Amino acid sequence: MTQEKPIWHNFNVVVLAGGVGGAKLADGVARLVAPERLTIVVNTGDDFEHLGLKICPDLDTVMYTLAGVANPETGWGRAQESWRVMTEVAHLGGPDWFRLGDLDLATHLVRTHLLRQGERLTAVTRHLCQKFNISPAILPMSDQSAPTMIETDDAVLSFQDWFVAQRWQPSVRRVRLPEDVRASGAVARALELADLVLLAPSNPFVSIDPILNVYPVREMIMDIPRAVVAVTPIIGGQAVKGPAAKMMQELGMPVTATAVAAYYGDLIDGFVYDTRDEHTVTELPVAGLATDTWMKDVPDRIRLAQEVLDFAARLATE
Amino acid sequence: MTQEKPIWHNFNVVVLAGGVGGAKLADGVARLVAPERLTIVVNTGDDFEHLGLKICPDLDTVMYTLAGVANPETGWGRAQESWRVMTEVAHLGGPDWFRLGDLDLATHLVRTHLLRQGERLTAVTRHLCQKFNISPAILPMSDQSAPTMIETDDAVLSFQDWFVAQRWQPSVRRVRLPEDVRASGAVARALELADLVLLAPSNPFVSIDPILNVYPVREMIMDIPRAVVAVTPIIGGQAVKGPAAKMMQELGMPVTATAVAAYYGDLIDGFVYDTRDEHTVTELPVAGLATDTWMKDVPDRIRLAQEVLDFAARLATE
Repeated sequence: MTQEKPIWHNFNVVVLAGGVGGAKLADGVARLVAPERLTIVVNTGDDFEHLGLKICPDLDTVMYTLAGVANPETGWGRAQESWRVMTEVAHLGGPDWFRLGDLDLATHLVRTHLLRQGERLTAVTRHLCQKFNISPAILPMSDQSAPTMIETDDAVLSFQDWFVAQRWQPSVRRVRLPEDVRASGAVARALELADLVLLAPSNPFVSIDPILNVYPVREMIMDIPRAVVAVTPIIGGQAVKGPAAKMMQELGMPVTATAVAAYYGDLIDGFVYDTRDEHTVTELPVAGLATDTWMKDVPDRIRLAQEVLDFAARLATE
Repeated sequence: MTQEKPIWHNFNVVVLAGGVGGAKLADGVARLVAPERLTIVVNTGDDFEHLGLKICPDLDTVMYTLAGVANPETGWGRAQESWRVMTEVAHLGGPDWFRLGDLDLATHLVRTHLLRQGERLTAVTRHLCQKFNISPAILPMSDQSAPTMIETDDAVLSFQDWFVAQRWQPSVRRVRLPEDVRASGAVARALELADLVLLAPSNPFVSIDPILNVYPVREMIMDIPRAVVAVTPIIGGQAVKGPAAKMMQELGMPVTATAVAAYYGDLIDGFVYDTRDEHTVTELPVAGLATDTWMKDVPDRIRLAQEVLDFAARLATE
């Protein structure tokens, strides 16, 4: 009983991921690709300081998802969470607009502790991943601070102010990404060795763009000799979760999978979209794959990851 | 049925307090003296940053004690405490030598949040006291950082490193207090208006001295026209709790109530010692009062506070 090895079995894979959707695809890929061949580069543009603690929402979502301790209902935070600290913070008149569970708080406390001791975010994330028994490398896109700012009609807001405190309601005029942010050595090395790069089904503007904006991530991905494949965050003309569709509208784009592919432009070699959107997909600028991209459970994640990897590997070896 | 008003009923009272013993006497005094006439000035020499949070152990002990939410068994922290965050911090390889309960953490998070917003520790403490429904003013001795350092035979340790991490075992050669620390305006105003100043039964070297060291606290207390009374932290030749007796030995002093009175010297006008120590009390340099100073419950606190106030008021009006 031998199983044929997939053509990507000895490929190095890099996944660029933001929050929930990115974490799910990354988890599917992590269940298929050998850990030493997989690197997940995560958006840190949403990171912020709150109550004295350094909070990295996307890193935590990816980490909790791969560790199998993510809260399946909320999409953020931990399963079996409790709220004793936050309830008391509210009693004491502290801010409770950003919900921090008791277990989740432990992550922020340990991260903040290690950062204060002079460790870099990359090393801190490696430490936490070890404690969560996560084998593939999860890397912050940079060890530098790289805050994403949201320009609305009325104000320029920090990402969490817009996203959580104002529930992404203020209309977005422009996303402002910082200049002069550099990738860590670990990110640059992973991209140098990458055979396949997957852009996860995360928000293109506030999850994937912030990673591409880190120098020289975009430049290195343009140079990848093999395949770069993006997975649509739009399913049935809507975002599965979060503001992607609303932002596309506000930024003057049609809310379609095709528009996402066009947005990534010549960065990508292939685009995976949902069968629900087949009727809208016209003039795709790159090779396309239509499939069911909605990840409702772990088997969905694995199946989608398998199809995306197969598709990317075919493009890479054509 | 009229009750005669005590002679101190219109006196302004300032209590200098450190941790547990100081908090208990302060609580007794707070149950007798009108809130607008009482100020409790608390040692902040033990304050430190931990896991990114600003922690003020003595302020919290006084605050929790007066709010009636202190843990009666440990002497620090809150009653009905839980440990979900700290357990997870330990799982994640974070430091757990300083025990932070879930409810207690909320205090540190809110304090850190307000300090980061630019508020002074005095204002932050007032905010917390309002939330805990505490009426008398609890003031940090200074809004500046004033870390107490412990010089041992081998090293100079931060206070919490010596006190908690090393369980006050390394022998103390000298207590190092910082220079150029200034009292807040609120502390100076309270001392200016003070009729009675009480030095609570706290450790003279690491609780009371750090307050006296803040300019111009000692100078203003020397000038108080009425009475300054200290309550012994030594009962039956021993410290009720903590390192006071051990430190007296290491600093070359006899471990007696008399030695504490002599140590305070001409700063005080009266000294309250325990009846258990009457046989050792000889040549007291100031007026003395022997009584049961052990505060096992709230009625003990009130009785002792009453006796100390009566004694101080008699000295003040003699």
